Amino acid sequence: MATNLAPELDRFLSENNDRIHDELFEFLRIPSVSARSEHRQDTMRAAEWLAARMRDIGLTTEIVPTEGHPIVIGEWRKAGTEAPTVLIYGHYDVQPAEPLELWESPPFEPTVRRGRIYARGAVDDKGQLYLHVKALEAHLRTRGTLPINVIVLAEGEEEVGSPNLASFIEDHAKRLACDAVVISDSSMFAPGLPSILSSLRGLAYVQIDVQGPAVDLHSGSYGGAVINPATALARIIATFHDDQYRVAIPGFYDKVRDWPDDARSRIRALPFEETKFAEEVGAPALGGEAGRTTLERIWTRPTCEINGLLSGYTGEGAKTVLPAAAMAKVSCRLVPDQDPDEIATLVRAHVERVAPAGVSVTVRALHGGRPWRADLKGPLYDAARRALATAFEHEPVIVGEGGSIPVVGDFERILGAPVLLVGFGLPGENAHAPNEWMSDENFVKGTRAIASLWDELRG
Amino acid sequence: MATNLAPELDRFLSENNDRIHDELFEFLRIPSVSARSEHRQDTMRAAEWLAARMRDIGLTTEIVPTEGHPIVIGEWRKAGTEAPTVLIYGHYDVQPAEPLELWESPPFEPTVRRGRIYARGAVDDKGQLYLHVKALEAHLRTRGTLPINVIVLAEGEEEVGSPNLASFIEDHAKRLACDAVVISDSSMFAPGLPSILSSLRGLAYVQIDVQGPAVDLHSGSYGGAVINPATALARIIATFHDDQYRVAIPGFYDKVRDWPDDARSRIRALPFEETKFAEEVGAPALGGEAGRTTLERIWTRPTCEINGLLSGYTGEGAKTVLPAAAMAKVSCRLVPDQDPDEIATLVRAHVERVAPAGVSVTVRALHGGRPWRADLKGPLYDAARRALATAFEHEPVIVGEGGSIPVVGDFERILGAPVLLVGFGLPGENAHAPNEWMSDENFVKGTRAIASLWDELRG
Repeated sequence: MATNLAPELDRFLSENNDRIHDELFEFLRIPSVSARSEHRQDTMRAAEWLAARMRDIGLTTEIVPTEGHPIVIGEWRKAGTEAPTVLIYGHYDVQPAEPLELWESPPFEPTVRRGRIYARGAVDDKGQLYLHVKALEAHLRTRGTLPINVIVLAEGEEEVGSPNLASFIEDHAKRLACDAVVISDSSMFAPGLPSILSSLRGLAYVQIDVQGPAVDLHSGSYGGAVINPATALARIIATFHDDQYRVAIPGFYDKVRDWPDDARSRIRALPFEETKFAEEVGAPALGGEAGRTTLERIWTRPTCEINGLLSGYTGEGAKTVLPAAAMAKVSCRLVPDQDPDEIATLVRAHVERVAPAGVSVTVRALHGGRPWRADLKGPLYDAARRALATAFEHEPVIVGEGGSIPVVGDFERILGAPVLLVGFGLPGENAHAPNEWMSDENFVKGTRAIASLWDELRG
Repeated sequence: MATNLAPELDRFLSENNDRIHDELFEFLRIPSVSARSEHRQDTMRAAEWLAARMRDIGLTTEIVPTEGHPIVIGEWRKAGTEAPTVLIYGHYDVQPAEPLELWESPPFEPTVRRGRIYARGAVDDKGQLYLHVKALEAHLRTRGTLPINVIVLAEGEEEVGSPNLASFIEDHAKRLACDAVVISDSSMFAPGLPSILSSLRGLAYVQIDVQGPAVDLHSGSYGGAVINPATALARIIATFHDDQYRVAIPGFYDKVRDWPDDARSRIRALPFEETKFAEEVGAPALGGEAGRTTLERIWTRPTCEINGLLSGYTGEGAKTVLPAAAMAKVSCRLVPDQDPDEIATLVRAHVERVAPAGVSVTVRALHGGRPWRADLKGPLYDAARRALATAFEHEPVIVGEGGSIPVVGDFERILGAPVLLVGFGLPGENAHAPNEWMSDENFVKGTRAIASLWDELRG
């Protein structure tokens, strides 16, 4: 049953609302694009900024270098040994903002329009990470203490596959030991409907490079006698699915564990409006694997998607070139118990098998992450249900997520603690696309839900 | 039988060799890229430069505006009514130079290495056009006259499909009336082997745009439930050929007229080294339509080639995006009697038929040109055989060409004059690719062959 947010926390968050937003906007202005070497300094600046804000509210902080971007740690451990220890995970890096011309306001100049905060990283994940910091501040500033011991762990490489995080957790397992892991890097099922995530898809991301002639050739003087690498790539990609949109790469489904019947029933019971979803997507029609609903396709089934294609001449007008090379970026979303390394290997073997003579093909794994599924039983999830019901005045629903947070499985495996995934994004928020936004209402209510969660967890 | 080049022409060309090269290099430094709007002024500058050089040698010139880039006319008509009138056609525009990073020296800074003049436009077509101007100069400066009446017609839109040339020829058919058309915009079969072209392939160039969702989507949150336009495009392209590399677009071969047996025998008799050609191409292996030799594939058979592909994220690293759109540039090379408009229509109908539900597809014709085949009989061709044998000390061979010069058919049809295609490029010259070059020896000998041709033609 829901209890109310403590009045002093409520008052503090209301009175400091403008300042909290100003701080968030400062955070969003830092273009911490982890995938791009030219933003290396910006990404470091975001780490330093975040550490400084955690120090401001009384946490002990450390910026730990990695082979890539650093990990920021904030700690407060004065709640006593009988209090639970919670690890809050988030990431301060963001996706590239391109194509820039499609943004209605600059990606790194946060702009509020119609109750939405528009900026690259608004919802993925700076807004959701920062509301945790502010929930901690509400406790510490009003009471001088917290009901729990806290470790905040913010990484700067989530958008490039967290290459250094798992080893960091392994190496610091003792320091990071905790009773619960809490992550806000996902979405609510619908406005006003708080949501707890029960599953994530994994990821196997590869790049395919097809090399034909040594240089671009005149398509007239050579065309017909040389295998065209762009055509070869298209023919390779065309073998990735059958005509039912099932992935046709041999072995792809071998390790897929079907969802339990009750989970599938729960998914079908959700108030999902297919027409509205289709409108939001804006495609001529939805489509996917035969025999599955849209939510099942996104949450419970693996995919093989083309993320990018490049070959030959792509500028204005007509250039009659037979390209020397063609490239595709391909990512497979995975479900339990598919393994990212195994899937990358299957993709590579398949591509090499179907590639025509006359071109050479390389398949390079760029990154991967394991899929995850939880049972949602125990005091952590009960506390979350109560805190969310309080802040949003609605019982939370259990949802799945098509995206990947590769570290979730790592936390569970290495630290042996249950993971709570409670996100405050919304459908259509354009994470990874132009015009990313976060609902301002969800930012405000999310901060209150998390502030409440620590009281609920302590009991 | 070959006669010698007149001694005064010989001497003039030898003595002025350095200056002639300096002038050519000036011409090559002008980046007259007709496909790019940012080079509009440069393209105009090339037209003005060329007109000025023709005036220098005594031609009357005119720069005729078109809806695109202007046509440059140079005329000398003092040879009398009994002398033949020859129209020399060439083009002063060039292909885009991208990808720039693959050039060993800057594309618009001509550089001589190992007897080759490297520059965008060196062989296609500035070098070959300019040697005609210099051959005329040799006559006019040494004798004060020419054995023929001359019209030089240089256009600035050949590389974008000559959209305004056919109508210009139609509109000025009386002024352009002539006994022969001579064009140097092709290649010799091998070094030292002068060549007369008997056929050209035509062209039908289209752009395919596949639109899926309204914006790029997160491939995790949406992947599996939305048809991926990049995958859809690949599946469309994969239907363009069967597994024998025959074009599988219905109706594509309906109008193809087979080559006469003697032409096929002539092709098979040429000293073609497949291994050397393969090395030059640099691909792992050659390949193409089953049952045809390499030269037959290039000269006598139509193709459907991908010239460019673009979709989604193509930068550094991994971005998990489900692209909103995907684009392909596709050009079909055509042989008699295929029609470019009909082929573009067949491609459009095919693409619309095979496109999956869930995406919208548009096919836009960018440009086209008719294929051409000549019988090579009559005084023009006889004169050319003698002039080439003189300059290169070798009887010319009859060759085909896989590329397109769309205007050739127009000249023949509108002016009713035979067209002589005599080119001085060489295999591997990288026309339309980085590091385009022209053999300096061919530039020099080509100038002499053309100077000799006018004496031979007058008889």
